[in-house]
Amino acid sequence: MSDANCLFCRLAAGEIAADRLHEDDEVVAFRDINPQAPVHVLLIPRRHVASALDLGESEGSLLGRLFGVAAEVAHREGVAANGFRLVTNIGQNGGQSVNHLHFHLLGGRRLSWPPG
Amino acid sequence: MSDANCLFCRLAAGEIAADRLHEDDEVVAFRDINPQAPVHVLLIPRRHVASALDLGESEGSLLGRLFGVAAEVAHREGVAANGFRLVTNIGQNGGQSVNHLHFHLLGGRRLSWPPG
Repeated sequence: MSDANCLFCRLAAGEIAADRLHEDDEVVAFRDINPQAPVHVLLIPRRHVASALDLGESEGSLLGRLFGVAAEVAHREGVAANGFRLVTNIGQNGGQSVNHLHFHLLGGRRLSWPPG
Repeated sequence: MSDANCLFCRLAAGEIAADRLHEDDEVVAFRDINPQAPVHVLLIPRRHVASALDLGESEGSLLGRLFGVAAEVAHREGVAANGFRLVTNIGQNGGQSVNHLHFHLLGGRRLSWPPG
């Protein structure tokens, strides 16, 4: 299911340009247009999932794919050895800006604590 | 597989005290001892997984369980409606402090950007 009004559904469908690092039948990875670290990649499912609140055991296979791609991208971008951070925002207090599940992968600098 | 030298393996085994919010055969959730937000919960697999770099399609079922428990805890802690953030740190640049996969769930305040 995709939503014609959803930015990331349209991006996944190729209707919106992005600097894509990975695409498969379930997952797309692309650079954040407003990077917060030397490496800042977003990972999204093609299928519309509103946020991590909608994830559970039935999305296990999708999550496995998302995290597998995250690890692959981390290696390819050269941040696997020194480390990185994966973040997903849910709702207003989380700072979620697009209501389509996305994981931020940030690396290439030392990330501080707390995480926002 | 569990590691006798790993803090979170020992916590999952009940050898170390924690303020536990959830336990099942695969996942344990407990409050962070150094909270960075009004709600700050850690979610870990019982099984030793070093970090998110070791996740992929074969861990899909575990990930589905972890995210399902995260959503459940968010509802129970009263942060689902207003939002929250999920974070996992990998290696030194990520700020990973315990080498056993854990997800931070932070809520109860507005999380800022960048996430560290």
